[in-house]
Amino acid sequence: MLTISQRGQNMPASPIRKLVPYAEAAKKRGTKVYHLNIGQPDIETPKPVRDAIHHADFTILEYTHSAGLESYRRKLVEYYAKNGIHVNHNQIIITTGGSEAILFGFMACLDPGDEVIIPEPFYANYNGFAIAAGVKVVPLTSHIADGFALPPIEAFEEKITSKTKAIVICNPNNPTGYNYSEAEMQKLKAIILKHQLYLFADEAYREFTYDGKQFSAMHLEGVDEHIVLMDTISKRYSACGARIGAFVTKNQALLDAAMKLAQMRLCAPYLEQVAGEAACDLPDDYFDTTKAEYQARRDAIVGRLNAMDGVFCPNPGGAFYAMAKLPIDDSDKFCQWLLESFENNGQTVMLAPATGFYGTAGLGRQEVRLAYVLNIESIHAAMDCLEAALKVYPGRQ
Amino acid sequence: MLTISQRGQNMPASPIRKLVPYAEAAKKRGTKVYHLNIGQPDIETPKPVRDAIHHADFTILEYTHSAGLESYRRKLVEYYAKNGIHVNHNQIIITTGGSEAILFGFMACLDPGDEVIIPEPFYANYNGFAIAAGVKVVPLTSHIADGFALPPIEAFEEKITSKTKAIVICNPNNPTGYNYSEAEMQKLKAIILKHQLYLFADEAYREFTYDGKQFSAMHLEGVDEHIVLMDTISKRYSACGARIGAFVTKNQALLDAAMKLAQMRLCAPYLEQVAGEAACDLPDDYFDTTKAEYQARRDAIVGRLNAMDGVFCPNPGGAFYAMAKLPIDDSDKFCQWLLESFENNGQTVMLAPATGFYGTAGLGRQEVRLAYVLNIESIHAAMDCLEAALKVYPGRQ
Repeated sequence: MLTISQRGQNMPASPIRKLVPYAEAAKKRGTKVYHLNIGQPDIETPKPVRDAIHHADFTILEYTHSAGLESYRRKLVEYYAKNGIHVNHNQIIITTGGSEAILFGFMACLDPGDEVIIPEPFYANYNGFAIAAGVKVVPLTSHIADGFALPPIEAFEEKITSKTKAIVICNPNNPTGYNYSEAEMQKLKAIILKHQLYLFADEAYREFTYDGKQFSAMHLEGVDEHIVLMDTISKRYSACGARIGAFVTKNQALLDAAMKLAQMRLCAPYLEQVAGEAACDLPDDYFDTTKAEYQARRDAIVGRLNAMDGVFCPNPGGAFYAMAKLPIDDSDKFCQWLLESFENNGQTVMLAPATGFYGTAGLGRQEVRLAYVLNIESIHAAMDCLEAALKVYPGRQ
Repeated sequence: MLTISQRGQNMPASPIRKLVPYAEAAKKRGTKVYHLNIGQPDIETPKPVRDAIHHADFTILEYTHSAGLESYRRKLVEYYAKNGIHVNHNQIIITTGGSEAILFGFMACLDPGDEVIIPEPFYANYNGFAIAAGVKVVPLTSHIADGFALPPIEAFEEKITSKTKAIVICNPNNPTGYNYSEAEMQKLKAIILKHQLYLFADEAYREFTYDGKQFSAMHLEGVDEHIVLMDTISKRYSACGARIGAFVTKNQALLDAAMKLAQMRLCAPYLEQVAGEAACDLPDDYFDTTKAEYQARRDAIVGRLNAMDGVFCPNPGGAFYAMAKLPIDDSDKFCQWLLESFENNGQTVMLAPATGFYGTAGLGRQEVRLAYVLNIESIHAAMDCLEAALKVYPGRQ
């Protein structure tokens, strides 16, 4: 019989994208939908990056080196150095999005049945990559009441087994916006040293911190062999569709294994590497404007949320996401209802139910993730919708 | 202890790329290297495709739909219809290269321990994807003496077990250049129907057939649920660096599973999809020139090879590869020696040892793959090198 594999069946639908058909139906009815469900910023891709594409000098769209264009990797060395991360260009493999960097890490370090510990809620697609790689995700709950701070060391140690190979963090965090402190990172260092684990650090949102700087996993001293940086230009330069990321480590054995995975799929897309290289030459103050804009949006959305009756939203220190607890029965139902059965002056808002970001079944049913990727006017309009919706939602609690 | 996974250790280095360091060293010594090792054509990417990139109209490089731009998928429907392949745009998922289409097929249809039968020699990276997916490749030897024709049905049936889920073919074939006949395809149909298997058809070289047209797996009637077309624009439009492919099937359950894999990695690169879409509008005679050029190259390289003492090269009916049997002890040693220890008037040639294209250990030691992706003048120069090399190679047999 023709069958679908177990992993194909177990693969979760994206919690960010699964409600898209309802949004499309709402739009067909003429309802305006504010998309706070997905981290697709409305900020323009920087003009020098667009120019690099429009003036790309090539006659054959050739394969690049499997590790990526050397010129781009050399530029990245400078970019990282500016962020206190000191690597050479042979310690960087350009990947097809941060996604592929995560997949390479899982595949090169873990075998089927091995375990990774991930503080939850976490970026939902980690689940997909884990299922693809046959790896077991062991979630470790962080709590909205604590603003999603790193769970205590003891909580990690309770989860560590002989199968545990790595801890995954996203810092600043998607979906919580939490920015791990240096003290928390030092705690992680102690754990990975004591238990000889890898630390996979997804730092897609490095530049977007609002109350203090990001402390990179690569800033930890004496654990070079343990650290894998998983990076992407998607959010940094508002270039999500470029699908350009990086797998960065000083562990030579791991680089060798990841390089074979890189050779397997030949190379990352050429043109988008050209775009990524151009982005490295943006002036140092490029992020100031973007960051100020996101910070204003954060202040707006968090302010509006906490002013709503029964709503709690901890102030996120980074990235461009906020997690909010709502007075509702079920976030999946509520988010679908917003698209199917609600409108406020012809408008509604699309949110991501938090259930998809938890590995532990049953958690997140009163929480939603909001991506503050729209301008402040749209954020206020979206919050008007949410506020009105919470007053009439039949499942309000 | 920090360990590399078994699959990371087992992953083979690319037979096409593993000799690159020797080629780089040869170039540093001032030796000109003719690259017949890799399917990177010297033919220009069509100007309308380049223009589409240079005039791409966007201000934000956004995520696309996880299945790819709808406008592109609708164009592909027309492209496929011209080739007698009738699908709708919801039966196409745009992938990051043909590579990802292969990975999606393995992951969605097979679980770790399941088996795929692949006539060998085969595209070496199938091994990598199989290892990544935990799938066992069961090679079925085709022979250079038969021009690498499809092995008989009985040979397939001997390899089929309860774990067998699919047969993979590449048609026209990389590395052999063999173009499967309609009669051979009908034999495959009988096997997949009788044993309820998937047929994964990698048709990257569809347009490049020199002695009769390609018969697509999608032309087989009554086996819609069984067929998965794995496609790419890399070779078709000389756009290898674009990393744009397609996963095409009429099997809805499989589409649903593959779509979750597609959501996991968000989307294929945006700009290159724009390039792919533009390629669909090339005039119908676009391939005439390219094909004539490849055919002339084939005739030149095959003629030269068979004129060499002790060399046999069956005439490939498609793609742009030839496999040749050489009077040598070991193709890996020979190909390395060509780069390390040989030159002919300051020139040498880089070939791919055939050992990496066989799943059965020990096969291919007297065979090499030659990609005729250089112009005829370069092909003659490369053949001059090979001819001279065979006269002096210490391991000649």
